[in-house]
Amino acid sequence: MIHYKAILKVMGGLMMLLGVLMFPSIAFSYYYQSGDEITLIGSALICLAVGGTFFYSFANQDQNIRKREGYMIVAMSWIIMSVFGMMPYIFSGSIPVVTDAIFETVSGFTTTGASILTDIERLPAGILLWRSMTQWIGGLGIIVLTVAIFPLLGIGGIELFVAESPGPTSDKVHPRIRETAKRLWFIYVGLTIVLVGLYYLEGMSFFDAMNHSLTTMSTGGFSTKNASMSYFESPIIQYTAILFMFLAGTNFTLLYFAFKGRFSRIWASDEFRAYFISLSVLVVGIAGAIYYLVPGNIEKIFRDAMFQVVSLITTTGYVTADYTAYSNGLTIIFFMMLFMGACAGSTAGSIKFIRHLTFVKNSTLEFKRIVHPRAVVPLKINGERVTGKIITHIMNFLLLYLMIFVLGSIVMSMAGYDMITSFGAVATSLGNVGPGIGRVGPVDNFAFLSPFAKLFLSFLMLLGRLELFTILVLFTPYFWRAN
Amino acid sequence: MIHYKAILKVMGGLMMLLGVLMFPSIAFSYYYQSGDEITLIGSALICLAVGGTFFYSFANQDQNIRKREGYMIVAMSWIIMSVFGMMPYIFSGSIPVVTDAIFETVSGFTTTGASILTDIERLPAGILLWRSMTQWIGGLGIIVLTVAIFPLLGIGGIELFVAESPGPTSDKVHPRIRETAKRLWFIYVGLTIVLVGLYYLEGMSFFDAMNHSLTTMSTGGFSTKNASMSYFESPIIQYTAILFMFLAGTNFTLLYFAFKGRFSRIWASDEFRAYFISLSVLVVGIAGAIYYLVPGNIEKIFRDAMFQVVSLITTTGYVTADYTAYSNGLTIIFFMMLFMGACAGSTAGSIKFIRHLTFVKNSTLEFKRIVHPRAVVPLKINGERVTGKIITHIMNFLLLYLMIFVLGSIVMSMAGYDMITSFGAVATSLGNVGPGIGRVGPVDNFAFLSPFAKLFLSFLMLLGRLELFTILVLFTPYFWRAN
Repeated sequence: MIHYKAILKVMGGLMMLLGVLMFPSIAFSYYYQSGDEITLIGSALICLAVGGTFFYSFANQDQNIRKREGYMIVAMSWIIMSVFGMMPYIFSGSIPVVTDAIFETVSGFTTTGASILTDIERLPAGILLWRSMTQWIGGLGIIVLTVAIFPLLGIGGIELFVAESPGPTSDKVHPRIRETAKRLWFIYVGLTIVLVGLYYLEGMSFFDAMNHSLTTMSTGGFSTKNASMSYFESPIIQYTAILFMFLAGTNFTLLYFAFKGRFSRIWASDEFRAYFISLSVLVVGIAGAIYYLVPGNIEKIFRDAMFQVVSLITTTGYVTADYTAYSNGLTIIFFMMLFMGACAGSTAGSIKFIRHLTFVKNSTLEFKRIVHPRAVVPLKINGERVTGKIITHIMNFLLLYLMIFVLGSIVMSMAGYDMITSFGAVATSLGNVGPGIGRVGPVDNFAFLSPFAKLFLSFLMLLGRLELFTILVLFTPYFWRAN
Repeated sequence: MIHYKAILKVMGGLMMLLGVLMFPSIAFSYYYQSGDEITLIGSALICLAVGGTFFYSFANQDQNIRKREGYMIVAMSWIIMSVFGMMPYIFSGSIPVVTDAIFETVSGFTTTGASILTDIERLPAGILLWRSMTQWIGGLGIIVLTVAIFPLLGIGGIELFVAESPGPTSDKVHPRIRETAKRLWFIYVGLTIVLVGLYYLEGMSFFDAMNHSLTTMSTGGFSTKNASMSYFESPIIQYTAILFMFLAGTNFTLLYFAFKGRFSRIWASDEFRAYFISLSVLVVGIAGAIYYLVPGNIEKIFRDAMFQVVSLITTTGYVTADYTAYSNGLTIIFFMMLFMGACAGSTAGSIKFIRHLTFVKNSTLEFKRIVHPRAVVPLKINGERVTGKIITHIMNFLLLYLMIFVLGSIVMSMAGYDMITSFGAVATSLGNVGPGIGRVGPVDNFAFLSPFAKLFLSFLMLLGRLELFTILVLFTPYFWRAN
C-alpha cells in the first residue's frame, strides 16, 4: 500500500517552502510600490496555512517514504507547486485566465520559459519577480531530484553518471546525500548571487539583474523584457549570460570540483567533453553559415551564433536573434538543438549529452559487434563499463522521448496547428527550452494557442522535466499492483 | 584479406541474370512494336557479355565467400544492378539525364517507387515493363537477402524472427537455405502470376496487369499510369491491389505455411498480429476521420483509407487519393506511416513491425523493471525469450534509422528545400515507400529536385533497403581491419 499520509506531509512542507519563497517578491513589490503586495502576501499566507495544516497533521509520518511514495512525491510536487504558484497571477489579474496561468506557472517551475504573455513589461514588479522565482525554484528542485531522488528511483538510466549519487541499489536516502545536496545548492545559490552582481555592474538595473540571474542559473529563460535578452544590447552582458548559461548546463558536481580547484576532474568527464566540443563545433559552424548567408560584423555574428546555440542547448531559451530567419537548413539545425539538452546533474532539460553519448558509442560498437560476433565489446563511459541493462534503459528512454514527440505532434496537428508549429511547440515543451519554430518561434509567444493546447503542452513540460518515466510509471498497472 | 575474385564472380553471375531478365521486356517491345527493341536487346547483350566475362574468368572462386565478402556482395549487387539496369532508359532516350536515370533505377531495384518521370505514359512499352521488372527483381533480391544472407551477416537484429533462417551462429550457407529460398520464390512467383490473371480478369489490359502485378508483389509501386492506381476506378481492382499489397507485406514464410494449410502458424506470429491489428485500427480510424472531415460515399471513403494505409505501411506507394489534402492531423499520421514498414521477411522496406514490437514490449517492461529493480524481466516474442544483445541491436537500429532521417533532412534543407519537403523526401526514400509529403506528396514527383538531391536520395534508398548496417559497416575501420 502507498503511504499517502507521508506524501501529504511532504507536500505540506513543500507548500510552506513555496510560501516562504514568495517573500522576496513581496519585498520587491513594496520597494517598487508596484501595487501587488496584497496579492502576494495573500498567496504566501494561503501557502503557509494550507501547507502548515498538512505538515503538522501528519508530522510523524516520515518513516514510511519508500520508492513508490517517491514517485508520487516527485509527480505531485510539480503539480502542487503549479496550482499554488499560480495564485499571484490570478489574484493580481496579471493573467486572469486559468489555463493561461497554469501554462505560465508550469512553464516556470519546469524551467521551460515559454510564455503566453504578449506584453511582459506591463506586469507589476512583484509578479515579475515571482515569475522569475518559479524558474529558480524549479532549478533548485531538479537538483534535489537529480542528486537525491532519481538515483533511488532508477529513473532515466543516468543516475550512475551523476557523481556521488548512491546508485539505484539503495532503498533509503543515504545520509551523504544531504551533504552532497548542500554542496550543490551552495554552488547554485553562490553562482546566482555572483551573477546578480555581474549583471548589475554591467549595466542592468538591480531588478533586471535579479530576475535574469534567477532565470539564467535555472536555465529557465523568462525575461522581464518583451525582447528577451536582445533588449540588453551590451555585448558584455550577453557574453556573461552565455558563460553562465554554459555553467548552469554543466553537471553541478563538476562545478563543485572546479570550485575546489580540481579542474582535471572536469575534463575527465566524457559527458562534459561531448558537451563542450559539440557546442564549440556548432558555434563555429553556425557562425560561418550565418556569415555566408548574411555577411556583417564578425563579432556580432559570432556572438549571435554562440548565444542562440548555448541558449537552446542548455534549454534556457533566451533569444537575441531570430534563428528561424536565416535559412531552411539553419532552422532545422536549431530545431534539432531542442533535443540535445546539456549535462545530467545540471538544471538543463531535454535529452542530455550522457544519453546521446551512450547511443553514439553503442552505435559504433554495434558495427564492431557485427564484424566480430563472438567478441565481447563493452561500452565504457568515464572509463567504466556500462551494463547492458543501463544501455537498454537509456536507448529506450531515447526512443520513448521521440515517440512522445511524435504522438504529441500528432495531437497538436489534430488540434488544428500546422506541422512545423506542432513540431516546434511539442519539442520545446518536452525539452523545457522555451522558443520553438513555426508560429511558436523565437519572436513569437504561446498566447494564440487554444486552452486545450496550453494544457497539453503544460503536461509535456512536466513529462520532460521529470524524465518521462517518473510520470508515466504512475499510469502503469505495475506501479499500482506492486507491494 | 577480402577475396575480390570471388566477389567479381558473383557480380558476373548477377549481371548475366540481369541480362536474361531483360528478355520479357524485349518480347513486349516486339509485341507492341514500341520501337525500343534494339535498345533492350543491346542492354541485355552488354549485361550478358560483361557478366559472362567476369563469371567465367573467376569460375573457380566460390570456396572463399565468407562474412566480409557477403557484405560487399550485398552492397555491390544493388550498385551493379543500378548501373547496368539504367542502360535501357539512357539508350532509348526515355530518361536522357544520367542522375535522373540513376534515381529511377535505384528507386526501382530498392522497390521504392519514387519517380522523376512527369509523363510516364509516353514511355515505350518495353521500357515501361523493364521499369516494373526492376522492382520485381529488387523484391526477389530482398527475399534472398532476408532468407540467406542477412542471417549470416547478423544485420538488423531481425534474423532470428525470420522463421527457418539458420541464425547468426553459422558461418557457411546452410544447405537448407536453398530449399527455403526455393519455397519463398515459389510463393513470390506464384502470387505474381495469380495477380496478373486477377488484374486482367478485372479489366486491366494484359500489359497493365503484368506491370502492376510485378510492382504490387514487390511492394514497389511503379505504375504505367500518371495517375497511379487511381486511373483504375474499378473498386474490385483496387480491393485486389489492397489484398495483394497486404500479402506482399506479410512474412513470406507465413504465406508458405498458409499455402500448406497451416493457418494457425500465421496468427501465432506476434509480428503478424501487430501488423494486422495496426492496419485495422488505422483504416477504421482514418476512414472515420475522413468521413468527419469530408462526408461522402462510405464505401469510397473506406476504400480510400484502406488503400492509402495499406499502400504506405507495406511501403508500396501506389496512390488513389491525395492523403495530404484532408487535414494537418491526418497528413502527419500518414507521414508517420512512412516509418512503419510491414513484416520482416517480406518485400516491404522501412523499419518493420518486429522492431516496433520489440521497442513497445521493451518499453512496457522497463516500467516493470523500475518498479521491481531486482526482478528478471525477460522480453518474449513468439513465446521465445529475446536476448539483451538483440534488444540492444534492434533499439540501436531504430535510433540509427531516426538519426539518419534527421541528418538526411538537414542535408536536404541545406540544399534549399523547405522542411516539410525535406522530411517527406528523406522519410520516403529511406523507407522505400515512394510518395512523401510537401512538394514530394502523393500527386507530385521528384523531377524538380537538383541532381545532388536525386543522388543523395538514391543513396538513402539503398541504405534503407539494405537495413542500414550492411552499407554503413563498409565505412567503418572494423570492417577493413578484420581478418
